[in-house]
Amino acid sequence: MSAERARVVIIGGGFGGLTAATTLARFPVAITLIDRKNHHTFQPLLYQVATAGLSPGEIAAPIRGVLHKHKNVSVLMSEVKGFDLARRRVLLEDFEVPYDFLIVAAGASHSYFGHDEWEKIAPGLKTVENALEIRRRVLLAFEIAERQAIATGTHDPVNFVVIGGGPTGVEMAGTLAEIARSSLAHDFRAIDPRRTRVVLIEGVPRVLPAYPEDLSRSALRQLEKLGVEVRVSTRVTGVEPGRVLIGDTVLPSSVTIWAAGVAASPLGKQLGASDKAGRVIVDRDLSVPGHPEVFVIGDLAAASDERGKPLPGLAPVAIQQGRAVAHNIGRDLHGAPRRPFHYRNKGTLATIGRAAAVADFGKLHVSGFIAWVLWWSVHIMFLIGFRNRLLVMIEWAWAYMTYQRSARLITGDTRLPGFANASVEDRESKTVA
Amino acid sequence: MSAERARVVIIGGGFGGLTAATTLARFPVAITLIDRKNHHTFQPLLYQVATAGLSPGEIAAPIRGVLHKHKNVSVLMSEVKGFDLARRRVLLEDFEVPYDFLIVAAGASHSYFGHDEWEKIAPGLKTVENALEIRRRVLLAFEIAERQAIATGTHDPVNFVVIGGGPTGVEMAGTLAEIARSSLAHDFRAIDPRRTRVVLIEGVPRVLPAYPEDLSRSALRQLEKLGVEVRVSTRVTGVEPGRVLIGDTVLPSSVTIWAAGVAASPLGKQLGASDKAGRVIVDRDLSVPGHPEVFVIGDLAAASDERGKPLPGLAPVAIQQGRAVAHNIGRDLHGAPRRPFHYRNKGTLATIGRAAAVADFGKLHVSGFIAWVLWWSVHIMFLIGFRNRLLVMIEWAWAYMTYQRSARLITGDTRLPGFANASVEDRESKTVA
Repeated sequence: MSAERARVVIIGGGFGGLTAATTLARFPVAITLIDRKNHHTFQPLLYQVATAGLSPGEIAAPIRGVLHKHKNVSVLMSEVKGFDLARRRVLLEDFEVPYDFLIVAAGASHSYFGHDEWEKIAPGLKTVENALEIRRRVLLAFEIAERQAIATGTHDPVNFVVIGGGPTGVEMAGTLAEIARSSLAHDFRAIDPRRTRVVLIEGVPRVLPAYPEDLSRSALRQLEKLGVEVRVSTRVTGVEPGRVLIGDTVLPSSVTIWAAGVAASPLGKQLGASDKAGRVIVDRDLSVPGHPEVFVIGDLAAASDERGKPLPGLAPVAIQQGRAVAHNIGRDLHGAPRRPFHYRNKGTLATIGRAAAVADFGKLHVSGFIAWVLWWSVHIMFLIGFRNRLLVMIEWAWAYMTYQRSARLITGDTRLPGFANASVEDRESKTVA
Repeated sequence: MSAERARVVIIGGGFGGLTAATTLARFPVAITLIDRKNHHTFQPLLYQVATAGLSPGEIAAPIRGVLHKHKNVSVLMSEVKGFDLARRRVLLEDFEVPYDFLIVAAGASHSYFGHDEWEKIAPGLKTVENALEIRRRVLLAFEIAERQAIATGTHDPVNFVVIGGGPTGVEMAGTLAEIARSSLAHDFRAIDPRRTRVVLIEGVPRVLPAYPEDLSRSALRQLEKLGVEVRVSTRVTGVEPGRVLIGDTVLPSSVTIWAAGVAASPLGKQLGASDKAGRVIVDRDLSVPGHPEVFVIGDLAAASDERGKPLPGLAPVAIQQGRAVAHNIGRDLHGAPRRPFHYRNKGTLATIGRAAAVADFGKLHVSGFIAWVLWWSVHIMFLIGFRNRLLVMIEWAWAYMTYQRSARLITGDTRLPGFANASVEDRESKTVA
């Protein structure tokens, strides 16, 4: 990298960071992308890993592999401790990276609403590790029941509780019900997986609250058709090993999955004013007020559309923002004025399960099989790299034809507890795929 | 399972156990297959997972999935504590499983020759967990060097040391050299992976000692062509974080891999007389002397051929033994006399790297590209399940065409140490895929 080139540092290899890097690579700049992981995770398909439909290698791509043909992009695998905005430095554990432009796309994780102790019991679905841990627990729950039934002739019921009725909670609940009733139905001799109870809990009066009401109703119908027990306007008051508390009601739970709150990366606090979710409030060009050389994009940015409506934490938003920021840096280099960011909403999709989904294209609302085919087409197209796309299509076609789940591996800590404490959370997990 | 049916219990879902189960399923018996894992691991391709070529889901198959169409086969995921041979019971942690016939196919793991403390530093390659841990360490070693080079302008050399020159050590060393020189060569900006040093250490005077001498010589030539530094007649005296000791010589090692000794499952000791590797000495029908209802097969059995030559620990041996034992149980049920086991050796293959392998068909010895194509054809044919076979073929074709490694994910504990202690062993690993 020649010294006179502007140095651009990008934090995060998600949709926003990768798009910014590939777009900027065309300009005469020296780019350093920093991520604590070595891979991009295709989050929209994480639920398929959690439910044993896909392998991690099929929904995650090594960042170096994605960027290796861009010679002016350097990838650095590292944790970011913070920033020295005055000296224009990114602070790592043991050294600093100087920048002329900084793009922070560090994303968000789950919020447990002040109950961080719930996280170990009820993992969320943000990382490959999360997904594999959920897969391990779900598959172990059936093994524990089968083992108990063989030994004693009877077994405790298998219950899955999903907390949060947004897109992630809906797809998890729907797919869990689906694999219990189809994929795993004939794998066991002593238990009947079809008797598995899947409960979806949502605090507000409807699932997919960000969608139009008719699509929420349709999603509810499709969930119930798949066998999911949906409880809206219900607040969880406690999460304990083996059970979920709703006021005085105790809901037994073999596996509890958290799909509720969102908390922006703690790095946001170091960049300036943030909203209650910890997202950084940015100008119309996505730069930090007072620091035109620092941009925040994706789930970490609190940006709004023309009508002041906050933009959702979706891949298309992050991708469009990454592109916009890259071009504004290009304009700075040419002394041209920056342009404000405009989000083009091409519609939003949420999948529920086999042949079940909803799609919101503004005036046009679509449900069921067609929405589901749309969902898969869009996401497979998005999947980074031909190889993944091909494999995921094969996996999906195969799974659809045969009802099989191809990635049903329990690895890492596979010790089964005795029947006394047939819960799968209370053990140090060394999940692997 | 009807009571009058003979109860057959099989310990282990490897090649031997699975073959015994599928063969026995045709007889009027009630079969219970017990394994501590929920999946069969296709061990011949584990090195591909360890070197990021394949994902675990592509070389492992859920045992329930493999057996689910056999209604008289029940799968029990459980650790086996021991046996009560007099009362004909398999002892689990908290209950017992009675049997009329018992087939023990519990396999073998690595022997560290009394230095069990070496295991954490130099993992072997027996399980999916092993393979993922090696993959994590290998990929992290390059990330650590790149990070150090970006920060300081220089970096400690990346060295891989493989201990043991048998088939596993040879394929690991060859493939590590190959990915350093091809797959990863263009992924880094500050380091040159092609300068990676791969050392293979073997105690006896030649690699692949179980093969004819000319094939050992050919394997050595092919290894050196791939850039592997081979040291024969060399004994390792110490394994420490970051280094391997050979007498007074200190060999720096970023990642050390153990491919040396074999130790049969401890369950063997409970079944009767065993050889020095802990393998159970069996009669010609593979039953335990004094217990005609108990059979031992696969890596756990010390069986010999007609000329008294001990049979190797290979998949074909286990598969043929599984079939033979199943048919002898069938003969018992019909009051027919048992037949002694005869191993039909169809030849043995060892892969070394890209277009490099050796094949021993008795009189006919083959090396290089042809042997390599043979190796892949045979192993893909063997791979359980059409799906896996198809995916592995695609992965392999893709990797061959593009030199890419598709499964280059570092997951679990991805914290990088400072440069002071740039070793990857000394951290609690939560490997995932």
